[in-house]
Amino acid sequence: MSKALPSRSENYSEWYNELVKKADLAENSAVRGCMVIKPYGYAIWEKMQQNLDRMFKETGHSNAYFPLFVPKSFLEKEEGHAEGFAKECAVVTHYRLKANPDKKGALMVDENSKLEEELIVRPTSEAVIWNTYKNWIQSYRDLPILINQWANVVRWEMRTRLFLRTTEFLWQEGHTAHATAEEAIAETRQMLEVYATFVEQYMALPVVRGVKTPNERFAGALDTYCIEALMQDGKALQAGTSHFLGQNFAKAFDVKFTDKANQLDYVWGTSWGVSTRLMGALIMAHSDDEGLVLPPNLAPIQVVIVPIYKSEEGLQKIDVKVNEIKQQLQKQGISVKYDNRDTQRPGFKFAEWELKGVPVRVAIGERDLENNTVEVARRDTKEKTAVSFDKLIEHINFLLADIHTNIYQKALDFRAANTTIANTYQEFKEILDTKGGFVRAHWDGTAATEEKIKEETKATIRCIPLDNEKVAGKCILTGNPSEQMVLFARAY
Amino acid sequence: MSKALPSRSENYSEWYNELVKKADLAENSAVRGCMVIKPYGYAIWEKMQQNLDRMFKETGHSNAYFPLFVPKSFLEKEEGHAEGFAKECAVVTHYRLKANPDKKGALMVDENSKLEEELIVRPTSEAVIWNTYKNWIQSYRDLPILINQWANVVRWEMRTRLFLRTTEFLWQEGHTAHATAEEAIAETRQMLEVYATFVEQYMALPVVRGVKTPNERFAGALDTYCIEALMQDGKALQAGTSHFLGQNFAKAFDVKFTDKANQLDYVWGTSWGVSTRLMGALIMAHSDDEGLVLPPNLAPIQVVIVPIYKSEEGLQKIDVKVNEIKQQLQKQGISVKYDNRDTQRPGFKFAEWELKGVPVRVAIGERDLENNTVEVARRDTKEKTAVSFDKLIEHINFLLADIHTNIYQKALDFRAANTTIANTYQEFKEILDTKGGFVRAHWDGTAATEEKIKEETKATIRCIPLDNEKVAGKCILTGNPSEQMVLFARAY
Repeated sequence: MSKALPSRSENYSEWYNELVKKADLAENSAVRGCMVIKPYGYAIWEKMQQNLDRMFKETGHSNAYFPLFVPKSFLEKEEGHAEGFAKECAVVTHYRLKANPDKKGALMVDENSKLEEELIVRPTSEAVIWNTYKNWIQSYRDLPILINQWANVVRWEMRTRLFLRTTEFLWQEGHTAHATAEEAIAETRQMLEVYATFVEQYMALPVVRGVKTPNERFAGALDTYCIEALMQDGKALQAGTSHFLGQNFAKAFDVKFTDKANQLDYVWGTSWGVSTRLMGALIMAHSDDEGLVLPPNLAPIQVVIVPIYKSEEGLQKIDVKVNEIKQQLQKQGISVKYDNRDTQRPGFKFAEWELKGVPVRVAIGERDLENNTVEVARRDTKEKTAVSFDKLIEHINFLLADIHTNIYQKALDFRAANTTIANTYQEFKEILDTKGGFVRAHWDGTAATEEKIKEETKATIRCIPLDNEKVAGKCILTGNPSEQMVLFARAY
Repeated sequence: MSKALPSRSENYSEWYNELVKKADLAENSAVRGCMVIKPYGYAIWEKMQQNLDRMFKETGHSNAYFPLFVPKSFLEKEEGHAEGFAKECAVVTHYRLKANPDKKGALMVDENSKLEEELIVRPTSEAVIWNTYKNWIQSYRDLPILINQWANVVRWEMRTRLFLRTTEFLWQEGHTAHATAEEAIAETRQMLEVYATFVEQYMALPVVRGVKTPNERFAGALDTYCIEALMQDGKALQAGTSHFLGQNFAKAFDVKFTDKANQLDYVWGTSWGVSTRLMGALIMAHSDDEGLVLPPNLAPIQVVIVPIYKSEEGLQKIDVKVNEIKQQLQKQGISVKYDNRDTQRPGFKFAEWELKGVPVRVAIGERDLENNTVEVARRDTKEKTAVSFDKLIEHINFLLADIHTNIYQKALDFRAANTTIANTYQEFKEILDTKGGFVRAHWDGTAATEEKIKEETKATIRCIPLDNEKVAGKCILTGNPSEQMVLFARAY
């Protein structure tokens, strides 16, 4: 391991960038804005996928796969959608390279292979999918369609950051079709709740469930629901969105069905997605100046065991004990790594597994075998305890549950301490510039006010929380009447 | 369900195309050469993925993710590779669309967004990955690197067929780096064996393990190992390949390491992959004129239960019994569907589940409840048996195992009956034009002969089987000396 991380207080942004690289999660690739997700980072993403996938299936969804390419004309069909995505997309114009006659070994685009219609690398799949659904839906009997896709998408971002904003990213996108608006809205909200449950129960991160203002909606949606989380630097991060599409895409792609009364109507739609951005949220929410702090439910390695020995003979004795412990833990579905590398000292190993956020570390020395105890350290609080062998499994089980509860509560307390009410615009600006965090404030409900506040303070309305109390007041900017406070923040 | 499938003997190719569509596996999309994999087809692919992924992890591999795009200059670096892939690739040249001023609502490529260097949508990832490995490898301590990626790739095929040859397809690609040639070769062969085991034990399809002739090697490899399967129409299908890359990519991307003796050397590499093409093999190997025949180990639904009733009351009684049976089956990890739709008659359901290849069908009538028996039908032989309730679970377990064994054996017998020795070129051509299948024949070992035979007969050397007996003879085309017979076939 090379030199230590910058501290969060020193430079939060650099701390994040360095942590992602040093903990072997991801790195920038040679392709502008695209990342390489390294095995340790991908293992966390796989755990996210497995749990989300199970939750999607439990709520009746199936996976399918749709093409990577969207014909340009498809993007044009839904006006808002076209405007939202046309500005930042990878455009395929040709389908062949040929040898460059002027330069040995070089390749060049073969102009004879120009496509009649350009293909866009999908920034999202509503267009391709609704064009497909058109052929799948005739009657109410064909509804609902409840499909999810795990895929890569491309949005040509100008400023990129590992996991948080990359040109290519991995995600899942659910696309459902329904006979009624009510059913589609229920689906939209159900999937929001699935996301919130996942983020809270697996990522140990509390979220605000809310609805976006018209300004912040998905391009083509009637309503965008979201979950918003607060990072340690006081900035918000949108962790997932679920869109009620109304009949917009059905109209754009002419998807009609005959209902039970034999009437022809357009189909109602939803779409919902979370992406590798969740990795960014996971890292920023819990980690500290020593490295990652992984929630036990998503840690690829939940327990690491480090032997401390002076002789080969001592190591052999420890090996026997460790194998016993490993088997017991694995039997309970706990993932364990025995770090018996002979190329590194224990201190180096401790620092490395701390950096990589392994929740529980067990150190076993030759003396411990005699005393019948081991040293168990938890990553979140760095507390160490001597535990007797017969209590070890029980103690580790306790720790894995307790670490989850503890880091969740810590994040919840942090959010509570960093959610502030602003009664005036002056207060609002001061809070943003000093403590940051979520700011609750009255807003007059107009896009103009929202944009002016954004322009002047870089804060956006993250959402109108679903459980918001409707207490009237006056807009902090205009003084005009407001129905309720909304949630502002500077955001990732 | 619409009209029946064409029969295999009538039109094998049409039978395949129609079966893929009617069984809800996949369909052509609006994007030329790209397919939509529908939920039922994707569920089979997911089962393939799960099992392969487990086998990769059991042999020490981790998953990671590398960028979708390959800079044009990367493709140029390995000469053979460039020639092999430059002819058929999707080229991204621009990163923005803009409103077309001449046509309201239309979009056009923004010429100001032209990329300095074109990006190729990956046809395979050796170039991007070896360029990354360069930074990961300094010393023998960094080796081996054992990584796999699940991804989509694009090869601009002119003639496409669902699953068998599509412009975009899904696959996994393993890319490993080693300190010695021996270790890399051992890895190449290990992964071939993993593929062979998977295809035989999960797809119930026997394969020939072999090595390709230089002509048929992967562009950039020193050796390409493959597994070859025989389809019911007598054509061969390459089901997976594993490549020993030597130091070719290490040299192209300057990937060196210091070995234990402190000498600098280029790294040795392998790559290996299977794709959604396996779906094509699965369909063509076992299915019949009534539809799919799925191997039990990959069937998304292993048992379907159809109630046969005259009254609502009768159905309720059946429901109770079925729920009992379902629970017992699920407890054993068997996937069951209870098809209690009231919109379709039993005969329709029988035909539909036959079309979809569900291995075991249980029909339960009101009378069966009284007699304490049910009718159990197996998909492969269409045999029906009356089974008493207390023997049902045992019988289903037996059937699932027996269907696997039976369809494997059937495919093995078919292959044995359709592998013929040709002693003369005349015989060789006759066999190909009459019975088809694998043809074993002597070949003089030259590319010229191989190409002439291909040109004249459309048969290629599928492989030199690994367990081949080295018995000398004379080449069927030239009469020149031959060391051994090789395996020819017309192929997909």
